[in-house]
Amino acid sequence: MIELYELAGQDPSARFSPYCWRIRMALAHKGLHAKLIPWHFGERRLPGGNMQVPVLVDHGHVVADSTAIARYLEDAYPTGPSLFGGENAEAHANFILAWTDQVLQPALFPLVAPDLPQHIKPDALPAWRATREERLGMSLAEAAARREQYLAAAHAAMGPLRHVLANQAFLGGSEPTYADYTVFGAFQWVRCGSGREILAEDDPIFGWRDQLLDLFDGLAGDCKVAEAA
Amino acid sequence: MIELYELAGQDPSARFSPYCWRIRMALAHKGLHAKLIPWHFGERRLPGGNMQVPVLVDHGHVVADSTAIARYLEDAYPTGPSLFGGENAEAHANFILAWTDQVLQPALFPLVAPDLPQHIKPDALPAWRATREERLGMSLAEAAARREQYLAAAHAAMGPLRHVLANQAFLGGSEPTYADYTVFGAFQWVRCGSGREILAEDDPIFGWRDQLLDLFDGLAGDCKVAEAA
Repeated sequence: MIELYELAGQDPSARFSPYCWRIRMALAHKGLHAKLIPWHFGERRLPGGNMQVPVLVDHGHVVADSTAIARYLEDAYPTGPSLFGGENAEAHANFILAWTDQVLQPALFPLVAPDLPQHIKPDALPAWRATREERLGMSLAEAAARREQYLAAAHAAMGPLRHVLANQAFLGGSEPTYADYTVFGAFQWVRCGSGREILAEDDPIFGWRDQLLDLFDGLAGDCKVAEAA
Repeated sequence: MIELYELAGQDPSARFSPYCWRIRMALAHKGLHAKLIPWHFGERRLPGGNMQVPVLVDHGHVVADSTAIARYLEDAYPTGPSLFGGENAEAHANFILAWTDQVLQPALFPLVAPDLPQHIKPDALPAWRATREERLGMSLAEAAARREQYLAAAHAAMGPLRHVLANQAFLGGSEPTYADYTVFGAFQWVRCGSGREILAEDDPIFGWRDQLLDLFDGLAGDCKVAEAA
């Protein structure tokens, strides 16, 4: 049995971790079923002593960190569709992962963070707020007040993504790869974490996201959209 | 016979176009020999009515634009080593190309531009300077004066590249692909166009660039380094 420990909100149907979405999509891509085990900020019951989700437990074998989990799934389940498309493709995808972690998600963070408290259990909220406000360098309310400025910066950061998706269906080409799921995770964070629409309908990123929301019988599209605070 | 029209400087050995370096390296990767035909800013004798280099002429067939040339070489010479590594790898590489064009090269431009006039023929210099200063939004001298600020911004922009190259030999994995040549072209622009060293020796990008300078019997490493103005 495969188990996936994933971040959940106070509403048990809320799923807003970008890293957990990478793995939800990767498991579906491989045709694998996992038992989903919700975890909330402040809880400490993750296997292997891990403090962050996602954590995958495959027949007792514990793998933590989304990138390591994706790598594990590719090796452990070689008969399913490849997540990457070969060695060169995986190496190139690593750049897209690094860009998502270092550029895209930091650009989206100040847009998402002010709406996230709705998902955090009251007893975990003070610690959650303190770490996020330290990362922002300001209060959540101040970040919310600068929303337009952050939105413009995020759209500028999305330039290379937009350019590519104007010319091909997916980052992986005609079909999605783990590179798509990685970037998509960031947009699920916005959608399921914040609930605010940041993409215009004529944005190539919008159409790409729609395709991914429909994939695997609407796995991601069926997820509860947050209510903007 | 394959001919490559490429940008040259006043010194006939100066080669500082990032786009031309992409194709020089791609041709060598494919094991193809091309007759190199120097072209200078302001000249108008490019095949097919093209106004920009590189232009490839393969037995009379004209292909312009570095990305189109790489695609052409991959199709026309399938028996040579692949430039991309398959469909998914090429699709992923397109993101690295877009990032290079939209993020890396614009970040390097104000560092390189002030040193480039040495390469431009005097009669072409006024028009060259006017277009570059318009792109900069300031004079070349003003850009030079802000060098430290631009250097810091360029290093911040290189973050995802640095992260990936700390963990794998090349963007393509254990061997370079066209994604490497694309990013490398930007660093050749700095090296052969400006001559200033912008990388510290302990930077993973420095070691990666060294590998590429050695490749193909030192094809790129043998090129004349500019003298910083």
